[in-house]
Amino acid sequence: MSTANNVAAPTRFLQVKEQRYAYRRFGDGSRPPLLFLQHFTGTLDNWDPDVTDPLASGREVLLFENAGVGRSTGKVPESISAMAQHALAFLDELRLSSCDVLGFSLGGMIAQQMAQDRPSIFRRMILVGTAPRGGEDIMHLEKPSLARHMSDPSLQGYARLQKLFFAPTESSQAAGAAFIKRLAQRTQDREPASGMEIAKAQIAAFRDWERPIGERFAELTGIRQPTLVVNGIHDEMIPVRNSYWLSANLPNAVLLTYPDSGHGSLFQFHESFTRQAAAFLGSDSAFAPY
Amino acid sequence: MSTANNVAAPTRFLQVKEQRYAYRRFGDGSRPPLLFLQHFTGTLDNWDPDVTDPLASGREVLLFENAGVGRSTGKVPESISAMAQHALAFLDELRLSSCDVLGFSLGGMIAQQMAQDRPSIFRRMILVGTAPRGGEDIMHLEKPSLARHMSDPSLQGYARLQKLFFAPTESSQAAGAAFIKRLAQRTQDREPASGMEIAKAQIAAFRDWERPIGERFAELTGIRQPTLVVNGIHDEMIPVRNSYWLSANLPNAVLLTYPDSGHGSLFQFHESFTRQAAAFLGSDSAFAPY
Repeated sequence: MSTANNVAAPTRFLQVKEQRYAYRRFGDGSRPPLLFLQHFTGTLDNWDPDVTDPLASGREVLLFENAGVGRSTGKVPESISAMAQHALAFLDELRLSSCDVLGFSLGGMIAQQMAQDRPSIFRRMILVGTAPRGGEDIMHLEKPSLARHMSDPSLQGYARLQKLFFAPTESSQAAGAAFIKRLAQRTQDREPASGMEIAKAQIAAFRDWERPIGERFAELTGIRQPTLVVNGIHDEMIPVRNSYWLSANLPNAVLLTYPDSGHGSLFQFHESFTRQAAAFLGSDSAFAPY
Repeated sequence: MSTANNVAAPTRFLQVKEQRYAYRRFGDGSRPPLLFLQHFTGTLDNWDPDVTDPLASGREVLLFENAGVGRSTGKVPESISAMAQHALAFLDELRLSSCDVLGFSLGGMIAQQMAQDRPSIFRRMILVGTAPRGGEDIMHLEKPSLARHMSDPSLQGYARLQKLFFAPTESSQAAGAAFIKRLAQRTQDREPASGMEIAKAQIAAFRDWERPIGERFAELTGIRQPTLVVNGIHDEMIPVRNSYWLSANLPNAVLLTYPDSGHGSLFQFHESFTRQAAAFLGSDSAFAPY
């Protein structure tokens, strides 16, 4: 059985000083490797194989587990900035001086921070369901539209994820159910699910990220990488206006929004998303349009 | 010389009762024909051959000149609704009961109105640089950012169009200059340029379109066609928030925005635009994502 997919790819470990990072690495081809940066409380097992695997054709993909999540050791940092440092340390240890990145949600914030901290690290960036520093309404699980799922005792684990990541329409919920099934395909060598402590630290990082430093959005003008910004139009976890700000303030960004979808638009429309992402990553132009 | 392009395609004429419509029709293939609906004061000669011609591969394209513009007879209507009736009469006379549509700016409003008036008329819709009924800041040539170009005596004809349609950056203005050159390639069988009377009537139609009828944007939920909404992120003529409203309220719309560009984003990024448009139109899915 091939292991060039996120159902069977073994979890690997990388030691950097006192820190051990869990990750997966599969696929091959001549295109630059693609780093996947994961969402709030997500582990390596939360990456939809129908998103990772098509993108592992023509390039290697690297699924990274940040400090304190899954089988990565250490404490979950309470800032995006510290999470970005972990991801850079990981790439440095792998001797990867440049790659592409797909940052989803929390992962998209980390990607932005990495691009600011070390502009040479990324060639092209894909930012899905995420927000700039100074963005609004980032992962407020206490607001009514999310709290009703968070406090529903009949929803556990992936069933809750389906409600949170997909729009309340029949079509979106059906796509959510299919997504959940795909995640469950991996039965061995799984990561431990994230607990409350991880959630709390990551929420603290979101609250920090909502506070602008200096002029709001000004730092985005310095991110020159061709960028593809993607968002579900009915995202309740990180509303689409955050993606509007990203694409209006990043100097070199194409925005793509999907209808009838929420935070998990890339999973709902995985065929379209991977086709668009592959076309975007397949370009060597200095400009984002593809 | 081939005439399957907008440099050489002859202008044709279609008589419908007392009304004569100028149009061009070229290209071929098995895909549904694609109707082009033009912008404020634009004639058939304002269609960029680098946009029309690639899309004429695999399908016929139909460039339509509405009443009172170019060599189409009659009076320019002062409402989108009456313009939509002209376009429907034109398609009826051609015995086209269904086609695809690319509506740019004013043309995008007419396309929306046609889809409401006769839901079966379009299979898939592309709406570029346009606004829903009840949209804001639609073609206010009197506002400072546009008035400075309108009142600049050194800008005439296409030079003014370059300033209005492209962002003030060097890269966008260079793309604008290339666009103007492409428009000038057609030297024979040209349409008369639009004068003040045409502009005044079309502006009246914009002012009417800015007024919601009933609940704002409610009529968009009835437009079920797969739709691709496209906008330059720095569009001063019809700001991008109008495209945000379109994609948030149309139930089946993908939004694509381009960086470093204004109203003429489809001309600036003609390679990307025609590739995306062809992929979108090439889909037979009931859903917009492609």
